[in-house]
Amino acid sequence: MTTSPGIAQLPIQKIQDADILEMMDELAIEEPLEIRLQYGPAGDRREQSVSITMRTPGDDVQLATGFLFTEGIIADAGAIELISTFTSNSILVSLQKNINLDLSKLQRHFYTTSSCGVCGKSSLEALRTVCPAATATNEWKIDKDVLHHLPDRLRQQQAIFSSTGGLHAAALFDKEGHFMFAKEDIGRHNALDKLIGTTLQDGQIPLDKHILLLSGRACFELIQKAAMAGIRLVAAVGAPSSLAVQLAQECNMTLIGFLRDQRFNIYTSTHRVRI
Amino acid sequence: MTTSPGIAQLPIQKIQDADILEMMDELAIEEPLEIRLQYGPAGDRREQSVSITMRTPGDDVQLATGFLFTEGIIADAGAIELISTFTSNSILVSLQKNINLDLSKLQRHFYTTSSCGVCGKSSLEALRTVCPAATATNEWKIDKDVLHHLPDRLRQQQAIFSSTGGLHAAALFDKEGHFMFAKEDIGRHNALDKLIGTTLQDGQIPLDKHILLLSGRACFELIQKAAMAGIRLVAAVGAPSSLAVQLAQECNMTLIGFLRDQRFNIYTSTHRVRI
Repeated sequence: MTTSPGIAQLPIQKIQDADILEMMDELAIEEPLEIRLQYGPAGDRREQSVSITMRTPGDDVQLATGFLFTEGIIADAGAIELISTFTSNSILVSLQKNINLDLSKLQRHFYTTSSCGVCGKSSLEALRTVCPAATATNEWKIDKDVLHHLPDRLRQQQAIFSSTGGLHAAALFDKEGHFMFAKEDIGRHNALDKLIGTTLQDGQIPLDKHILLLSGRACFELIQKAAMAGIRLVAAVGAPSSLAVQLAQECNMTLIGFLRDQRFNIYTSTHRVRI
Repeated sequence: MTTSPGIAQLPIQKIQDADILEMMDELAIEEPLEIRLQYGPAGDRREQSVSITMRTPGDDVQLATGFLFTEGIIADAGAIELISTFTSNSILVSLQKNINLDLSKLQRHFYTTSSCGVCGKSSLEALRTVCPAATATNEWKIDKDVLHHLPDRLRQQQAIFSSTGGLHAAALFDKEGHFMFAKEDIGRHNALDKLIGTTLQDGQIPLDKHILLLSGRACFELIQKAAMAGIRLVAAVGAPSSLAVQLAQECNMTLIGFLRDQRFNIYTSTHRVRI
């Protein structure tokens, strides 16, 4: 029984001290989404499955758009001719007929499983995709007090997390700390792809005057996706990984971790934070 | 600078209220591991990359072994002839020459990214691999008080988590609640693959008289991996997803969530918990 998008209800036994309660509980919905690509010139159109990801249903078009962009398969929203949904768990992205797709990038991608999986990278060297360089002309600073307020502002907005405890969020703020919007998903990469896909559709990329807030940990692939979107400041409520810090450094991106309880750590590019 | 396996140190700025501290901080190491397979009859040996996963270095042999088993590529540890490590980020698993590998299972696997990614499944129907059926003869029950103690026992054992805040753990207990061992990784799937790979090498599979404790959330793929290893009771400190509950139900597996602060929820197969 589904009450709202992204949430399912089911009967459980809740055990607390000596009490047993039979009650309804809310769960974050996890369902597979297959992303299929249609590509090639008129008269020679081909179709291929490029991803099966476990995601929380909702914003599937934005998820597919963001995924194709952050993985470097499309360069802008204009590359997409049409997105069609045939079943609830399959989406077909038709590329423009003049788009030249490098299928060798796809065909050597295999199995992978990790919370921070770098899937679809055909060699270790290919892990680092484009890091758009920050230019001196668009540099800016943020006050530390603005940072302290971000997690609260996200929590006020989060519709699902509070009831299920099972979702990750990615939230976009402007550089004054005003909340713009957030996306949630059972997969942290999906939440970010949904966010970036939304901004790509709206013509807002590069996001170089924005702050990205991650509700959990910051791993390599999230930093890579943020870099693809031109984001210069990423703040995570949880811990960053070693490779996330390394990539942020290479990309001249400010990376903040453990942003909670009136404290935070700055790992890279400290000059963007005014203390 | 690395102090111990899985941890890196680097200089950071720590901001707390009005204080700025320049200090060294510890980070969970995240590095890619490529798993390559060598297979085929003598005289016609072939090699193929089957996975690139972001993992915390350490237990790479167990990780590769567990991954190949839980993904259904090998049926037992005897299928492996030799495991060789050439660089710190690449491992080659040579299968016995009489092993018949179904490469079509591998070749249609593409991109995917999700914290709970179901990677390498070539169609949505293939998501559910084998669920070994529980037989009446090996049924057992656990006391609720045993469950309450598991998270504390894991925390006492965790070497890395406390210092970096960035690692997931999977821990194995016997059905009396005695701690056996735990594995940690930046990817929750990797932690479980390391654990299952270790038991596979030791000839302990199926783990049908054991409890698996997950330090975070329980998503579909973790339940699938646990089911492959014959685990009948999974307890997670965090929330389960809807599909995790569904699969646990299909597998007649007891799934417990939110195991913390003297409470927990039972989602499936309540008969294995004595309250």
